[in-house]
Amino acid sequence: MLRVLRQHGAQSRNEIAARVGLSRTTVSEITGDLLGRGVIRVVDTDAVERVGSGRPAERLALDPASGQYMGVDFGHRRVNVLVADAAHDIIASGTSRYEESAQWPERLDAGLALIERLSNDTGVHYGALQAIGVGVPGWGDRSRADGVAEVFAERFHAAVIVDNNVRFAGLAEALHAQTDSVRDLIYLRLSDGVGGGLVVGGQLARGSNGYAGELGHVTAVPGGDQCRCGKRGCVETVASVPAILGRCRRLGVPMESLDDLKAAVDIAHPVVDEVLREAGTAVGRMLGTAAMTLNPSEIVLGGDIVEIAPALIRQVTSTVTYELSWLTDAAPVIRPALLSDESGALGAIAALFHESPLLAGYEANVTTDGGRQWP
Amino acid sequence: MLRVLRQHGAQSRNEIAARVGLSRTTVSEITGDLLGRGVIRVVDTDAVERVGSGRPAERLALDPASGQYMGVDFGHRRVNVLVADAAHDIIASGTSRYEESAQWPERLDAGLALIERLSNDTGVHYGALQAIGVGVPGWGDRSRADGVAEVFAERFHAAVIVDNNVRFAGLAEALHAQTDSVRDLIYLRLSDGVGGGLVVGGQLARGSNGYAGELGHVTAVPGGDQCRCGKRGCVETVASVPAILGRCRRLGVPMESLDDLKAAVDIAHPVVDEVLREAGTAVGRMLGTAAMTLNPSEIVLGGDIVEIAPALIRQVTSTVTYELSWLTDAAPVIRPALLSDESGALGAIAALFHESPLLAGYEANVTTDGGRQWP
Repeated sequence: MLRVLRQHGAQSRNEIAARVGLSRTTVSEITGDLLGRGVIRVVDTDAVERVGSGRPAERLALDPASGQYMGVDFGHRRVNVLVADAAHDIIASGTSRYEESAQWPERLDAGLALIERLSNDTGVHYGALQAIGVGVPGWGDRSRADGVAEVFAERFHAAVIVDNNVRFAGLAEALHAQTDSVRDLIYLRLSDGVGGGLVVGGQLARGSNGYAGELGHVTAVPGGDQCRCGKRGCVETVASVPAILGRCRRLGVPMESLDDLKAAVDIAHPVVDEVLREAGTAVGRMLGTAAMTLNPSEIVLGGDIVEIAPALIRQVTSTVTYELSWLTDAAPVIRPALLSDESGALGAIAALFHESPLLAGYEANVTTDGGRQWP
Repeated sequence: MLRVLRQHGAQSRNEIAARVGLSRTTVSEITGDLLGRGVIRVVDTDAVERVGSGRPAERLALDPASGQYMGVDFGHRRVNVLVADAAHDIIASGTSRYEESAQWPERLDAGLALIERLSNDTGVHYGALQAIGVGVPGWGDRSRADGVAEVFAERFHAAVIVDNNVRFAGLAEALHAQTDSVRDLIYLRLSDGVGGGLVVGGQLARGSNGYAGELGHVTAVPGGDQCRCGKRGCVETVASVPAILGRCRRLGVPMESLDDLKAAVDIAHPVVDEVLREAGTAVGRMLGTAAMTLNPSEIVLGGDIVEIAPALIRQVTSTVTYELSWLTDAAPVIRPALLSDESGALGAIAALFHESPLLAGYEANVTTDGGRQWP
């Protein structure tokens, strides 16, 4: 019952009974006991949204003071922090920026300073902090992940999990999807780099070495531009934001930022349009293969460029749709991300609510402080 | 404890204790009770394989008479049947051929006649038949799958599951893998068609509509040869056995069968070698993207051509290896299938032993006869 409340937030006794499969009478007995012990409390009634007659039902939730969960997302140029209480309400949030050239000690300092500032601003003292989820860019650098986990575990005496921040963002998208039952989803983010996250069969996929969803380094153009990974012609060399801006410049269109790109798109600049369509074709082919492999019900595209460049998205959609055209009942919904910059931190918190079936079998880097049971 | 015996076959009391996490004393008490009730029996001792001194330990197994499980694999030109007892021993097996043009009623008749013949030959009367797994070619034709399930359920009064036979073959490969712990595996079969099966995060993946692993219809050559799926240039148009034979013929090399291909490979025919390398490159690019998506620990290649055409496999291996070269610790093992023609039927039986963690959350077509509990 506590798991239901932790996972789904405030619920009426009838909703709880339906979810746990117990009778209404039994649920009332148990909630009476939990209310008496102060573990849960009545938060409101369903009067507002209630359809039909009858007495409004009380909605119960975990006592927010009984736990806090922190999500931290270190991006290339900023760190986001969210703190949620046990009722799933966000009780503090903030962002701090740093230079892209900033090294890890500096990034960590920025994150920790932000967390302290949030405490001063909101009065949240992290006294009930149960666990911290930290998203970091990149994959597989186990020693860095361990180092980050240790810093947070020592500072807050809480359990810490560390994983790729794009994967966490994909998890957040799956949890916020239009339907309750997205069991197969591909998330792709086009940003300074290109990364992804997968939900397969209702679970966040990690792969055998933690690299599942590394979609930016699929070869899109054999023999193409040199990629930072050492190969040539990766999706990232065609469809990352720097790659798109650079390609426009090489074709004679001055362009330094997403604002410049937006201005060019607004006047339907033919060269820019062509560059975006080429990028969309490369992304679409890669996603077509990934979708043929996984048969997802949703493909989610994230990153600021998604809002700016509809031509790119149209091209992705038509390429993927063609690839899956013969599977008439299998066309996935292809949609922009619902969550924006905070999705990594939200996903990190979601990963802490480990009871989600999406995380069955999930094993990220976990560091536990000796005195605390995880989770 | 019964689950351990069903899943792992004969075990000593110490092995059982280790697997279920109970003390040796408790396990002995429970096995004593089960032996008394005839549910399990002593099958042998570990004397032969025993290292070191000490009294040989008895090995216990489910009483084979307590259940039978049937796997049926309908291919394009033959049906395979395997029957296992509750101790996982194969107690009957056979194959019956039909023309590729045979329609479903004829194929079903061939399968049922084979099953009856096996009974006459072996004395197995299917009296303890608990469940039947049926593999069929192709994907997604739900009404055919339902029809096949009904025929078997009515005939044998047993629970029936029906799924794609290549997916079942992939499951069998994962279960027979070199290590116990293959949680992420891609299986690809190059045959009359090209199909695949996936294990992701320790589970057989189906996708949102049952198409996961449909790797033969990824576009390999944009604008290439017409494929039976309606698209052009699919992997199947380049790397299926008929596609390879046809391409050789078009390049002036007479070739009608895998035997002809083998003869050409044996004399290192340069045109044939080039055709095989082209096919390998197409398969390798597709598998490279699939492997970047899923980060599997193993990629398994099945189909008779795998043994005949090492040049194809070398090309697949080098293409996939290049694609994953920057993930230095993530190179998957790429290997030929361990199981041959019977793998579909073996996988179908494995799917019936539903307790395997590989099948957590697995939902195939399931038909149950009213009088019998499933599973």
